[in-house]
Amino acid sequence: MSRMTDTTARLLINCPDAPGIVSAVSSFLFSHGANITDLDQHATAPIGGTYFMRLELQTVAMDISREALEAAFEQEVAIRFQMNWQLTYAADRKRVAILVSKHDHAMMELLWRWSRGSLPCDIVAVISNHSDLREAVEGFGVPFHLVPVTAETKALAEATLEEKLVGVDLIVLARYMQILSADFTARWPHRIINIHHSFLPAFVGANPYQQAYDKGVKLIGATAHYVTADLDQGPIIEQDVERVSHRDEVGSLREMGQDVERQVLARAVRWHLEDRVLVHGTKTIVFS
Amino acid sequence: MSRMTDTTARLLINCPDAPGIVSAVSSFLFSHGANITDLDQHATAPIGGTYFMRLELQTVAMDISREALEAAFEQEVAIRFQMNWQLTYAADRKRVAILVSKHDHAMMELLWRWSRGSLPCDIVAVISNHSDLREAVEGFGVPFHLVPVTAETKALAEATLEEKLVGVDLIVLARYMQILSADFTARWPHRIINIHHSFLPAFVGANPYQQAYDKGVKLIGATAHYVTADLDQGPIIEQDVERVSHRDEVGSLREMGQDVERQVLARAVRWHLEDRVLVHGTKTIVFS
Amino acid sequence: MSRMTDTTARLLINCPDAPGIVSAVSSFLFSHGANITDLDQHATAPIGGTYFMRLELQTVAMDISREALEAAFEQEVAIRFQMNWQLTYAADRKRVAILVSKHDHAMMELLWRWSRGSLPCDIVAVISNHSDLREAVEGFGVPFHLVPVTAETKALAEATLEEKLVGVDLIVLARYMQILSADFTARWPHRIINIHHSFLPAFVGANPYQQAYDKGVKLIGATAHYVTADLDQGPIIEQDVERVSHRDEVGSLREMGQDVERQVLARAVRWHLEDRVLVHGTKTIVFS
Amino acid sequence: MSRMTDTTARLLINCPDAPGIVSAVSSFLFSHGANITDLDQHATAPIGGTYFMRLELQTVAMDISREALEAAFEQEVAIRFQMNWQLTYAADRKRVAILVSKHDHAMMELLWRWSRGSLPCDIVAVISNHSDLREAVEGFGVPFHLVPVTAETKALAEATLEEKLVGVDLIVLARYMQILSADFTARWPHRIINIHHSFLPAFVGANPYQQAYDKGVKLIGATAHYVTADLDQGPIIEQDVERVSHRDEVGSLREMGQDVERQVLARAVRWHLEDRVLVHGTKTIVFS
Repeated sequence: MSRMTDTTARLLINCPDAPGIVSAVSSFLFSHGANITDLDQHATAPIGGTYFMRLELQTVAMDISREALEAAFEQEVAIRFQMNWQLTYAADRKRVAILVSKHDHAMMELLWRWSRGSLPCDIVAVISNHSDLREAVEGFGVPFHLVPVTAETKALAEATLEEKLVGVDLIVLARYMQILSADFTARWPHRIINIHHSFLPAFVGANPYQQAYDKGVKLIGATAHYVTADLDQGPIIEQDVERVSHRDEVGSLREMGQDVERQVLARAVRWHLEDRVLVHGTKTIVFS
Repeated sequence: MSRMTDTTARLLINCPDAPGIVSAVSSFLFSHGANITDLDQHATAPIGGTYFMRLELQTVAMDISREALEAAFEQEVAIRFQMNWQLTYAADRKRVAILVSKHDHAMMELLWRWSRGSLPCDIVAVISNHSDLREAVEGFGVPFHLVPVTAETKALAEATLEEKLVGVDLIVLARYMQILSADFTARWPHRIINIHHSFLPAFVGANPYQQAYDKGVKLIGATAHYVTADLDQGPIIEQDVERVSHRDEVGSLREMGQDVERQVLARAVRWHLEDRVLVHGTKTIVFS
Repeated sequence: MSRMTDTTARLLINCPDAPGIVSAVSSFLFSHGANITDLDQHATAPIGGTYFMRLELQTVAMDISREALEAAFEQEVAIRFQMNWQLTYAADRKRVAILVSKHDHAMMELLWRWSRGSLPCDIVAVISNHSDLREAVEGFGVPFHLVPVTAETKALAEATLEEKLVGVDLIVLARYMQILSADFTARWPHRIINIHHSFLPAFVGANPYQQAYDKGVKLIGATAHYVTADLDQGPIIEQDVERVSHRDEVGSLREMGQDVERQVLARAVRWHLEDRVLVHGTKTIVFS
Repeated sequence: MSRMTDTTARLLINCPDAPGIVSAVSSFLFSHGANITDLDQHATAPIGGTYFMRLELQTVAMDISREALEAAFEQEVAIRFQMNWQLTYAADRKRVAILVSKHDHAMMELLWRWSRGSLPCDIVAVISNHSDLREAVEGFGVPFHLVPVTAETKALAEATLEEKLVGVDLIVLARYMQILSADFTARWPHRIINIHHSFLPAFVGANPYQQAYDKGVKLIGATAHYVTADLDQGPIIEQDVERVSHRDEVGSLREMGQDVERQVLARAVRWHLEDRVLVHGTKTIVFS
């Protein structure tokens, strides 16, 4: 897909489906000098469904300020169609924090892609309940915070997390082995991405590679999803699989699976950063 | 992707890229009661490229006839943007002829999908330079024509072909082992689809499975493309591959490859029938 | 993989792992003029596991009869290592019956591959609880039997099935929508192959495509497995997946999934026919 | 596949195909207390071909020294069958040097896997014709050598390379943008692995992503191969592909392709290190 530049804005919309939405939105934008360079839409049903739209705009020729544009859009278009909408700007990079425990592969993949400019965001912190990865993180020039968690200190630990997450737009659980409380996840709706090391809904819970080995599946997988209060059940963003055989032991499943996890998580995070992922109930719409 | 119904029309457009196209097209359609249910666009360059668009419309609430709509669109929109455009109707099923020699797998896959309603077209004839497959074809209730070809009779044979192809919208070469003349292919621009049994541009020409075996590749593939005067060089519509190993002989490569050919050709034909494939020079744009 | 000829025999062995097995087996075969052309082995644990072996032999130069060879192998090798073993001959084609209800895609794929010589077996019957597919089956020259099943007649129907299955080596459930009784499946251990239309263990039970749609997975799959008394839980032989998106409705998932089902079932049946699938508890070993 | 331990040895054999090889080899090993834990074989033709074999042995119970075993094997088995053979020990880790220019992705993937114990080798040096990657390399504790190359200094540069490569078992070209001379490659037969950023034999030479873009292929790929004097033509070890679309520009093809390159190169290097790759003329046999 094409690279975004700093003059790119993204308009995300959802509303009850109705005739005339494309016409209203595109005419509004055209009249203000915003050039549409990408447009995707999806209706959840032929009639009476919910309508989702994502546009990419070039704003160089725009005749009004951001604020004026947004106010005008609300008045002239959004109210009429009962739209939920947001306008984001590629120049406003999202602020990302990574939570991790001891496994480093998923975190390293993100840091490495970010360091070479492939993830359009600012990684502002890595937070872990163990200190093992401090050196690796700091080698990328990213602050590392140790926030230990025990059964007794869980509430306190989450409060500490929240402090360190002030100003963050996206939390990525890159194999963070703690379960976040329902209160915590409720404060970050569709803003926490987790990588689960199985092809969900198969093998929820602990030790999915052991479960996959015991079951004798011929493919193993990984799933990136938004985190909700319901463990391993949030809306799926991306999945992929790799072929395995009877020769593979749990250890080699884990090693091969880590490659899948890295790829799947990196794709999901990037799509989120580019505002390509829209949530509809328990499912996602991913505009390519 | 969603199934088309009989009230579905497809509008295909290409023109020099310019601001305001989406607005003009969608406003025109909305004002005439045509509801847009799918919309894809692609510009070949950020600035100064060619713009491609595909819309799916529901025409139930339209206030004018097809003819009036088309005339109005030409006057009110197309001229202004120098558009090449066409409007097709899902209810007007495309007429398809299959050309085949002796290998039956690609042809059978198409006939079988068509017989169960998965290919939205009328298969009006199968034409072969051998009589081997007559029975198999007629079992589907499709007329079979034998048009033998020799080096001496090639021009005559193509003339006979043309007679039998009157009224046909799409020709599918389902492993037809004759090379069509440049004159012939020029009369059917982007209306002949061929399945080549390799991952083009690797292994052009004859015996690609033997070539793949000799080269020792670890994946074999198949390519569906539009036919031009330049053998195996027309715009690629779809490709796929399958993993092979040193254990595979030419015969098993061929057998595995036939499965890939069947899938790749069936996808390409279906996308063509649904007007999803737009040609841009030597390449295609495939709107999903 | 290479094609078998009529002089090919396959020796399948399992026994407690111990040093010297390869040496004993290969020396025995060599001394009787049987040339080993393929050999695979697998031990389920580094020490103290179960050992599995599959050999392909060429029997042209053998100095004794089948019966004498088998008796000698039992005496000279098998007893010493406590082997379970069997020797099969490619020339003795397995007899296969297909059970089906109304969906024809999986059955048609098998009949079609078989009719062109790609499945090394004799398909001796197709049995269905509906008469819809009679004509399609008889077109291949294969006998079709109608054995209706209702809740009341289930036991009787299975008795009728058993009569029609006399002499059959393998039963393939090509989308047979009846659940076979535990008694029935117990009489056909590792000799019934079912195709389930999901990536097991996800989406067991009815309507897996609806379940996949509701869950919002990004890949759909199919699983071929041996049938046991435990529904959808028998040893998995083969699985594969296909990528889907939010655009896909249940109907298109089903249509795409049928392509995966056809491929997965065809592979599993072929591997079984070539004696490549060995069962170890609830899992399989598939020698390529 | 299973992890090797320090008591693992690998015996690689090729010889003219003949009856009795498995028997002779396995009986010899058994008689000396070497337990066979893995065995693969391949004959290039049903009759009169070349026979390839790879065995994994556990050497704990061996009754003689390495030297005595090798001498005995030569005398008792190898001469009789005219074998080329070698016996390697997992405990003797191969010494690897990486050659790289400015693109870091392939090199980083290898260093990163190696640093976490996933590549069984010693990476003894990274050598580059640019100094850009010095810091990244030294961060892994691996010596970095700058060996600049110009048209005039090419011969001298290769001499310097050879000095720095003394004692090295495997050279990996991880996007090294210099062409090695025929003399150089001839001194390292089947001991230089290159990653080419296309699905060979498509798109040999420079700028394969540009070539892929111009051609409009629907899949891009990468190929790991042994380097010979014939550029991009050496025996292929591993290949893989990724799906792309008309939306992708050269830049995004390159970025997606780098993920494929990383995976393909890492697999090829690991298989080489585990002695799984045997060369037969212009092709490879890869024992899984």
